[in-house]
Amino acid sequence: MALESNNGGEVGADNSLQSICYKRGSLRLLDQRKLPLETVYLDIKDATDGWQAIRDMVVRGAPAIAIAAALALAAEVYNSDPFNGTPNDAASFIAEKLDYLVSSRPTAVNLGDAAIKLKEIVSGAAAISSEAKSVFQAYIEAAEAMLEDDVASNKAIGSYGANYICDQQKSLQKFSVLTHCNTGSLATAGYGTALGVIRALHSAGVLERAYCTETRPFNQGSRLTAYELVHEKIPSTLIADSAAAALMKFGRVNAVVVGADRVAANGDTANKIGTYSLALCAMHHKIPFFVAAPLTSIDLYLSSGEEIVIEERSPKELLNSRGGLGEQVAASGIAVWNPAFDVTPAHLISGIITEKGVITKAVGSESFNIKEFVQKTEGARA
Amino acid sequence: MALESNNGGEVGADNSLQSICYKRGSLRLLDQRKLPLETVYLDIKDATDGWQAIRDMVVRGAPAIAIAAALALAAEVYNSDPFNGTPNDAASFIAEKLDYLVSSRPTAVNLGDAAIKLKEIVSGAAAISSEAKSVFQAYIEAAEAMLEDDVASNKAIGSYGANYICDQQKSLQKFSVLTHCNTGSLATAGYGTALGVIRALHSAGVLERAYCTETRPFNQGSRLTAYELVHEKIPSTLIADSAAAALMKFGRVNAVVVGADRVAANGDTANKIGTYSLALCAMHHKIPFFVAAPLTSIDLYLSSGEEIVIEERSPKELLNSRGGLGEQVAASGIAVWNPAFDVTPAHLISGIITEKGVITKAVGSESFNIKEFVQKTEGARA
Repeated sequence: MALESNNGGEVGADNSLQSICYKRGSLRLLDQRKLPLETVYLDIKDATDGWQAIRDMVVRGAPAIAIAAALALAAEVYNSDPFNGTPNDAASFIAEKLDYLVSSRPTAVNLGDAAIKLKEIVSGAAAISSEAKSVFQAYIEAAEAMLEDDVASNKAIGSYGANYICDQQKSLQKFSVLTHCNTGSLATAGYGTALGVIRALHSAGVLERAYCTETRPFNQGSRLTAYELVHEKIPSTLIADSAAAALMKFGRVNAVVVGADRVAANGDTANKIGTYSLALCAMHHKIPFFVAAPLTSIDLYLSSGEEIVIEERSPKELLNSRGGLGEQVAASGIAVWNPAFDVTPAHLISGIITEKGVITKAVGSESFNIKEFVQKTEGARA
Repeated sequence: MALESNNGGEVGADNSLQSICYKRGSLRLLDQRKLPLETVYLDIKDATDGWQAIRDMVVRGAPAIAIAAALALAAEVYNSDPFNGTPNDAASFIAEKLDYLVSSRPTAVNLGDAAIKLKEIVSGAAAISSEAKSVFQAYIEAAEAMLEDDVASNKAIGSYGANYICDQQKSLQKFSVLTHCNTGSLATAGYGTALGVIRALHSAGVLERAYCTETRPFNQGSRLTAYELVHEKIPSTLIADSAAAALMKFGRVNAVVVGADRVAANGDTANKIGTYSLALCAMHHKIPFFVAAPLTSIDLYLSSGEEIVIEERSPKELLNSRGGLGEQVAASGIAVWNPAFDVTPAHLISGIITEKGVITKAVGSESFNIKEFVQKTEGARA
């Protein structure tokens, strides 16, 4: 991996920060381990570089990891010497490299799913191709499509969300939005989900201010979201997680928009620890509370959030600074409960913003009928 | 100031940690700047040592500061050579030293109030004494009484609170309590207010577990409360502030007990930022929420919390580790809103635990009638 420093940070056509900079044959990843203090991009030349970048946490966020892996291999394939073999040999070569990439983070579901999908594409291409070159070309195009689709999906989320919130807040010329954790360019292929909605509101000139929480204990808010907001000159303020209720009481928050790890069929949403607390405070202050997530985050096989098991993370994240890597900050010997996320019940959620539109509840209903929404949008597409 | 290390920490007769260790002629203060990593006591021989310890944050917490100052001077006076002068000269000597001590932290109201009260006592003693020695003796006794009164008041709070909560939870053999910030031996002359209630519940054998929040951004919970709980072997668990709602949802919290910076006549309570959020979450989960504070924290001239101005603290507390003193953790250039405390409205508070008993609301009332409670308890004393 070659190292390159760039204090400004790469920006896309829409001026949003880019953590994955790709053009055919070239991939550069923003080294998120160095944020927010340094903005350094790493050149990723092949699957080996990609494997190491994923394993070493240069890149994080489920969709971002899968896309970075796919593009690392696309860069390798594009720059390789002519391949000596049949189309099937080419497909096997790619499948092996994908398996190797998956081994960088074996528990990352998106990465495994992407590998399966890409393998299907190359074996399909091998079946109809007369030369290996066409199989590689099909792979490169499929990997590039993953990047484009994720960004396009996020932009649609941003646009649907911004329009919906604008309609709701039409009595106000400008309004302020609170968000939690990082759901921006640093967690996705680009633009972001909840932070994408904030970007879209800012672009539309209606955003008074974005508030971001620190997001203890890993500080994704103060390190990453704050970095993105400053980078894009969006008027923004950082608060302690526990200050959100007071901020709401002062009338400074007009809407809350958060991301999602997983959404159940009724709309119950698992997301970064602290989301549930924000939703309770928002409800008390009659502030609309939105979840922004692509349809791939919705698990229709989960009937409710009750079925979601809460993963616990290392106590070190609370006992030491820098997410457990830094100096000791808490008293020795104290036990710690460090859940990775919590579940916000559907009745506290005003709407779920997806790339196909905003899912809302039927009047009088406490939960969402997401299955119906998905069927309708698929029907419209068909 | 002489330095003395003691890894165990001094304990009082009740086995609670002592931050102010005093016997006539000798004062030692636990150096809170070194907590939780080191337990070091400093010998305070005179007003100069006391001034420096207060200015340098060796001791913190409004009551603790006032008592440490008074006792520093008591130690000096006790160990001084015979005084050459009249009783009035002795009173002037003490008044000057008190003014000097107040200058260590001019904005600390308790310290200023204590100095005024002590000056009155010595000038009263001077008026009826024939020798300077009696004035000094009166001063020493008054300073010692401050220490004893504060500890006694905290123990009464602990006892009233524990009894009240036990009565409420009588269907359970053991129950768990969540607290916020530090209200223990490290913030008071000893025993503590909200943490005193937890101590009393533990002593009574009914405490399943104490949960303490980190208390961002200054981490009084993870640094100080966790330290006290570990020190006294109270079963306890540290959580991120934002994890409290999830903990409540899992049924792991039976009561919340917090301290108070200031309580208005209707019961609205200003306390460390995050208190309001905990109160909202407790209400949603039908968990009783108590404020534990001595009557001196109640300001009957404040009709409600609306009149309390929220003090803002340095952005550095969020931007850097160790309360602003350590390395940079947040993105450069981000604005910060860092309120020191928030106001929890009376309607979210189940009871206010004082050294004279637990103040509750009349059935159907949204607020407390604290004036009536104070008049009744004063009537009972008269």
